[in-house]
Amino acid sequence: MNPLAVDLNKIIEATSPATYALLSAKGKRLFFPTKGIVGQSAMAKAKADVRYNATVGIGVKDGAAIGFPSLRKYFDASLSNDEVFNYSNSFGNAALRKAWKERLRELNPLLKDKLFSLPLVSSGLTHALYMTAELFFDAGDSIVLPDQIWGNYRLMFNTLGAAKINSYPFFDGSQFNLTGFKSALQKESEKQQTVRTILNFPNNPTGYSPTEAEATAIIEILVNIANQGTRVLVLLDEAYFGLFLESNVYSHSLFSQLADAHENIVAVKICGATKEFFAWGFRVGFLTFATKPGTDAFYNALEHKAAGNLRGSISNCSTSAQNILLRALSTKEYQADFALNYKLFQSRFEEVKRVLAEYDYSDMFTPYPFNSGYFMLVKLASHLNAETIRTYLLDHYKIGVISTSPSDLRIAFSSLEQEHIEHVFTSLYQACKTHS
Amino acid sequence: MNPLAVDLNKIIEATSPATYALLSAKGKRLFFPTKGIVGQSAMAKAKADVRYNATVGIGVKDGAAIGFPSLRKYFDASLSNDEVFNYSNSFGNAALRKAWKERLRELNPLLKDKLFSLPLVSSGLTHALYMTAELFFDAGDSIVLPDQIWGNYRLMFNTLGAAKINSYPFFDGSQFNLTGFKSALQKESEKQQTVRTILNFPNNPTGYSPTEAEATAIIEILVNIANQGTRVLVLLDEAYFGLFLESNVYSHSLFSQLADAHENIVAVKICGATKEFFAWGFRVGFLTFATKPGTDAFYNALEHKAAGNLRGSISNCSTSAQNILLRALSTKEYQADFALNYKLFQSRFEEVKRVLAEYDYSDMFTPYPFNSGYFMLVKLASHLNAETIRTYLLDHYKIGVISTSPSDLRIAFSSLEQEHIEHVFTSLYQACKTHS
Repeated sequence: MNPLAVDLNKIIEATSPATYALLSAKGKRLFFPTKGIVGQSAMAKAKADVRYNATVGIGVKDGAAIGFPSLRKYFDASLSNDEVFNYSNSFGNAALRKAWKERLRELNPLLKDKLFSLPLVSSGLTHALYMTAELFFDAGDSIVLPDQIWGNYRLMFNTLGAAKINSYPFFDGSQFNLTGFKSALQKESEKQQTVRTILNFPNNPTGYSPTEAEATAIIEILVNIANQGTRVLVLLDEAYFGLFLESNVYSHSLFSQLADAHENIVAVKICGATKEFFAWGFRVGFLTFATKPGTDAFYNALEHKAAGNLRGSISNCSTSAQNILLRALSTKEYQADFALNYKLFQSRFEEVKRVLAEYDYSDMFTPYPFNSGYFMLVKLASHLNAETIRTYLLDHYKIGVISTSPSDLRIAFSSLEQEHIEHVFTSLYQACKTHS
Repeated sequence: MNPLAVDLNKIIEATSPATYALLSAKGKRLFFPTKGIVGQSAMAKAKADVRYNATVGIGVKDGAAIGFPSLRKYFDASLSNDEVFNYSNSFGNAALRKAWKERLRELNPLLKDKLFSLPLVSSGLTHALYMTAELFFDAGDSIVLPDQIWGNYRLMFNTLGAAKINSYPFFDGSQFNLTGFKSALQKESEKQQTVRTILNFPNNPTGYSPTEAEATAIIEILVNIANQGTRVLVLLDEAYFGLFLESNVYSHSLFSQLADAHENIVAVKICGATKEFFAWGFRVGFLTFATKPGTDAFYNALEHKAAGNLRGSISNCSTSAQNILLRALSTKEYQADFALNYKLFQSRFEEVKRVLAEYDYSDMFTPYPFNSGYFMLVKLASHLNAETIRTYLLDHYKIGVISTSPSDLRIAFSSLEQEHIEHVFTSLYQACKTHS
């Protein structure tokens, strides 16, 4: 094992035995090559005369990165060539990482005085999830997931990571299934001394987020498992954070409570610009760690492991995307943009609710509870098949929806103008009727 | 195993047993979830009325992706919101993939009538290399590499991939070490029925590319190994392709000969915009496969496996970067930009040669052969330590260079204006003198 990895492991094990116990074999091997090209280049960037810096493999002219005019012309003149063309740090743009951390504190007042890592920039949220899988999952490890999940989890954890998925039913009537969640964790806990789970709120595909009371109960369940001596890894996939569309929804990140909930709980927050800034094609996500005994040195060690993984798999993330996001964050201009589109989503959400209240579709489909995010999900009556209805809707009504299981159809109201929502639901009902 | 993976494996095994034999366990498990969200969304994109497409998790208004003005203003008005903000296909932008394939044929006339895969878009070249590692390397597999390599190979293949690195000396005097390459492959071939290697030309860190004669000999060596029944995976890391600075250098891709060289040879070309378009921060690379018995269905199957890996680890690549690159490719405007900067690099290269010819540094350091790319490498006299000289140069001369081994220093002449090159070498010599 590389001596740098050994050093990082020592810090991690001494500070948080739970984190160390949860690391995969690869996670233990990982380190950031601080003495390699990237580390040496960083030293040169700080110390060398810009005219004499022959470390990095880019083309430099007049002290800045060269930019082809044929590419450069698509970016605003206020961005420098370095902000568009140069490489970014493997950990992410330092100012952006700080700005995102401040934003996490602003949105989650409970984090105000808590210690947690400096967010690492990932190439989108999938990548942040995947890096977590690389750090914390060996082949054969289990992950506790609800039955309502983003399909890509299967590809990521099962196909790529060779982990086993243990499912529990997401809903218990109209509520988050606390009992199911608890017993799935409990079963895992009894089999082994580690438990790994993802909490994805607002949930994809249902668009459900917990209420205040459910959020409190979720934390309690996790703390109880941790009290048994079990090490608990909690991935918080908060891609749709902020899009809370009902007033009774818990509107903060569970990370803010889990960050210092228990020495056996390791929380990993996955969030980013993709959905929160409507910047889907930017590919900018963030990966943030917290555990009760965490110290600056400990977080630094974990960040080095994650950045080592990033360096060895994609090197670094889009420079222009990071700089443009940083500018929008710095000026706070994005807040008005978000507010406007939040309002837009809310009007679509309200329209979906109005249509569902006005018409009785219950002989053909029933909506699952939804209160946040981009989506809602309907459960078809038992005589109907979701894939059949999906393709029929597409062929006969030119309506696109997603079948997420043999019984469920996901509708992204984020993509539907308010005036077309009723038509989509009416047509869905007609399509179901045709197959009845 | 997922039935989709089974189907892909059947096609691959039936068409090219060598490729199938080289696949890792993960490579065998991989598939692209054509029936999942991404596949269903693609169907809807083709068939649905844009007003009724509720498949994809983005925000849509007036038939296009919503874009925050606070982000949008950094992009030229000629780009649509969809070209900046929308998600890209996991395989990459279809038009860009075709354009890159055409470009490969233009630059390599030997490829004209040969079959090879449609290049898959990766998030930079590291990512294309890493995806290849995921597809074709199990823990414990060996990779044959020269002693002069980009340090990130170690992190990627050894730390992340748990593969063993078998080294051979890159140079034999002033030439590529054909004998060393051959005997390293031969040893592997005798141990097992598979051999995996990377050919990185122009080489990082030396800036060396083979001559015509060496290129021919390299192909011969690989074909001879393949003739023994050994399955040979050849990764062609051609990040610096096109920057050939001496006239006797083989100026085409070895891929064009390896593509149909032998049924036991599987060639993987890794190239992209990063160095070729001076677009380091864009994160756009390409991954292209070829083997003699390859068919369209076979390449399609391999592309699906690679795209499945991409989908499960980063989902997709930067949309604006792909679209901007596509525009530059379509108008061919980039060619004048490249020509201008090629000339610039050549003038710096010539200046390095002039300085090395004019002064006798041989008691302190000797340049390794170099004829292409961004770099050159010097070997220090045996009484000197590269790390000591590097830090001394930085502290006392504000000059930044990279120590790649205890004896070698890499100098990126790509980053040095012509007028400063002599100063850098003179100072390096002085620094060495000080330590003698």
